[in-house]
Amino acid sequence: MNHAVLIALGDELLSGIRQEGNCSWLAEKLTRAGWKVDKIEILSDGGPDLEESLKYLAGRVDLIVLSGGLGPTHDDCTRLALARYLSVPLGEDRNTYDGVLARYPEENRAGLERSREAQSAIPLGTRGVHNPVGSALGIACTVRGTRIFAFPGVPAEFRAMAEQELAQDILMNDLRMTSVFVAGWPENLLKDHLAPVIEQKDLHISILPFPGLIEFVLRGEPERLEQAEARVRSLLPGDCLPPGASSLEEAVILESRKRNRTLSCAESCTGGLVGAALTEIPGSSEVFLGSAVCYSNQAKKSILSVSQEVLDTYGAVSPQCALSMAQGALRIYGSDLSLAVTGIAGPEGGSEEKPVGTVWFSTCGSGIEETTMRRFFGNRRAVRDRALMAGLEMLWRRIVKEV
Amino acid sequence: MNHAVLIALGDELLSGIRQEGNCSWLAEKLTRAGWKVDKIEILSDGGPDLEESLKYLAGRVDLIVLSGGLGPTHDDCTRLALARYLSVPLGEDRNTYDGVLARYPEENRAGLERSREAQSAIPLGTRGVHNPVGSALGIACTVRGTRIFAFPGVPAEFRAMAEQELAQDILMNDLRMTSVFVAGWPENLLKDHLAPVIEQKDLHISILPFPGLIEFVLRGEPERLEQAEARVRSLLPGDCLPPGASSLEEAVILESRKRNRTLSCAESCTGGLVGAALTEIPGSSEVFLGSAVCYSNQAKKSILSVSQEVLDTYGAVSPQCALSMAQGALRIYGSDLSLAVTGIAGPEGGSEEKPVGTVWFSTCGSGIEETTMRRFFGNRRAVRDRALMAGLEMLWRRIVKEV
Repeated sequence: MNHAVLIALGDELLSGIRQEGNCSWLAEKLTRAGWKVDKIEILSDGGPDLEESLKYLAGRVDLIVLSGGLGPTHDDCTRLALARYLSVPLGEDRNTYDGVLARYPEENRAGLERSREAQSAIPLGTRGVHNPVGSALGIACTVRGTRIFAFPGVPAEFRAMAEQELAQDILMNDLRMTSVFVAGWPENLLKDHLAPVIEQKDLHISILPFPGLIEFVLRGEPERLEQAEARVRSLLPGDCLPPGASSLEEAVILESRKRNRTLSCAESCTGGLVGAALTEIPGSSEVFLGSAVCYSNQAKKSILSVSQEVLDTYGAVSPQCALSMAQGALRIYGSDLSLAVTGIAGPEGGSEEKPVGTVWFSTCGSGIEETTMRRFFGNRRAVRDRALMAGLEMLWRRIVKEV
Repeated sequence: MNHAVLIALGDELLSGIRQEGNCSWLAEKLTRAGWKVDKIEILSDGGPDLEESLKYLAGRVDLIVLSGGLGPTHDDCTRLALARYLSVPLGEDRNTYDGVLARYPEENRAGLERSREAQSAIPLGTRGVHNPVGSALGIACTVRGTRIFAFPGVPAEFRAMAEQELAQDILMNDLRMTSVFVAGWPENLLKDHLAPVIEQKDLHISILPFPGLIEFVLRGEPERLEQAEARVRSLLPGDCLPPGASSLEEAVILESRKRNRTLSCAESCTGGLVGAALTEIPGSSEVFLGSAVCYSNQAKKSILSVSQEVLDTYGAVSPQCALSMAQGALRIYGSDLSLAVTGIAGPEGGSEEKPVGTVWFSTCGSGIEETTMRRFFGNRRAVRDRALMAGLEMLWRRIVKEV
């Protein structure tokens, strides 16, 4: 197995203002191609850590990819650190930089000429890497058998250059990892249930819990993977998202389109999260008609026709109100199915009878009406995210159950 | 200055399936408290790297915080790695685990008793850390003057335990970093405009562009910070979010509450993103009444009373439709102000006249009606996110302009 280490440079990543994304993006690509990423490091722009890491890693792993620190600003120090590590001076890669400039319209070139010295500099003896998106060159070299690449940290530039440089001999294979997404199972029970698959020696399994969904990741040889995935699906009838769906919202849209059923929602505590999640999926407009976000009781009455009596007698967080909201959505949007969500996201608004985290769901359509209550723990964001997931799961199961 | 290194454990982070979030969250807290985070490492669950890192780092930095690898599943190996590093066996912290169990209802305890052996184990001589959210204990110890903490990787657990354990003597100081959020400025123009502040030698400035918003981060001594922040605000009248708001949605809710104005939305291409963003803010229910997500033309007509004529003559992505949607929201919710968003998020649906990325916005209320068009680049997600930001900015500016 080939081993790689990925290193991101940037003080903004170490002060937590930005989250690292390039290395984890590349890590997924490498993993799918059968590589093992041993480590991801995030280091300071200007410090001595990069040289130390390179000294330690060269000769020990097959590939090192650096992200960031190649622009023209004061804290972009990767080219200098590489030159110091290689004990060579910086030289200029005129040709490659001219190739980059040629991509720009005439009127932008004067500005780029001013950055030439900084952006075209590479350590002597290394290769400048063409940038098809921005203007800073990348750097490539091989030290003690370890291939080292440095690309700019701007995500579009990093990704384009990594794909261009690593595509052929490094990222060639896209088949050795597959995922099955499972709804409605707690992690530990799922593990026991899937033990026959997990215990197979020639597979590497990861179980990744999301709120309301578990991703069961299998790695191994292509033909073994296919068998194992089929086994997992047969052990969990009705609980696996369909192939091609990696989220509940994708499953909802995919299964509705397959069955030609239109959808609508009525949302209170989720405030639009369900609509936003469903419309994230391209093609959702074929089946999703809309969502009536009715945060105030007044809006629940005037828009969804929830009666004052239901609100007075049972309150806005009740099965009666959830059902009435789902019926309202069905009527005002004229959809085949509807989902309603109403609950207490907190931090205010809880009571002993209905603590923060209490959420009522209802689905309506084709003469079937269902209501369910769930109680979620955590802060406002956690309650809302879990309510979103639970609502999507309910809607998905309902669509699949319909013929 | 105190130095910290943060280490996340997890094969799912190295295979790119999950993005690391705990360390960058803590890095921000530490930075704000005057700490320097030297490095963030992401390591494999079961490998020897954690021991190597601990050996290298103990005695060199003041604080090491580990995230992940403390649950009951087969790839949760942090407690074993710590025990090996400390050359001690694992022991059981009965008391602390009993304290965790006491938080759960009777019916859940049998399952947790089964995980007791795995989840209550800590290396002999270390301290078990109470988990106020989940069930796995954390671990705390001091080695060669370096304080070492290990918390579970589930974000809610990691954050609650880090806050609980580090609050007092580590995260005590919240004053050495401040941010001003600026709307409506491109990064390079803002840099020139704020040069008098940026060039001050005793401040460390970062400029962080988000879609539609730039965060201007200042670090330095408390009294210098205060002056510099005032200077920035005076150089950018009307474009800085109010103190206390770090996002456009917070600014919208804060300014509406201050002025006692109620809000509603009508959303097409954003599909609920605006409502979801506004209701993310605690207390939003005081001013936000709801959002009519009308994805289909039929819903725009029946719910928002957009006329067939407007749809036939101008189309759903037009100033006329945006205005009519905003008027509709104002009427059905009875709010003081409303925002409508309608556009083409792609990948389908674009034309030469109205390419993908074309979005019309409208705000209505108090006798003022405004419409604006923006054209965004990028994929579906980028267009929707930018439309969300632009819509929130328009709404925020509108609220602030009202008296």
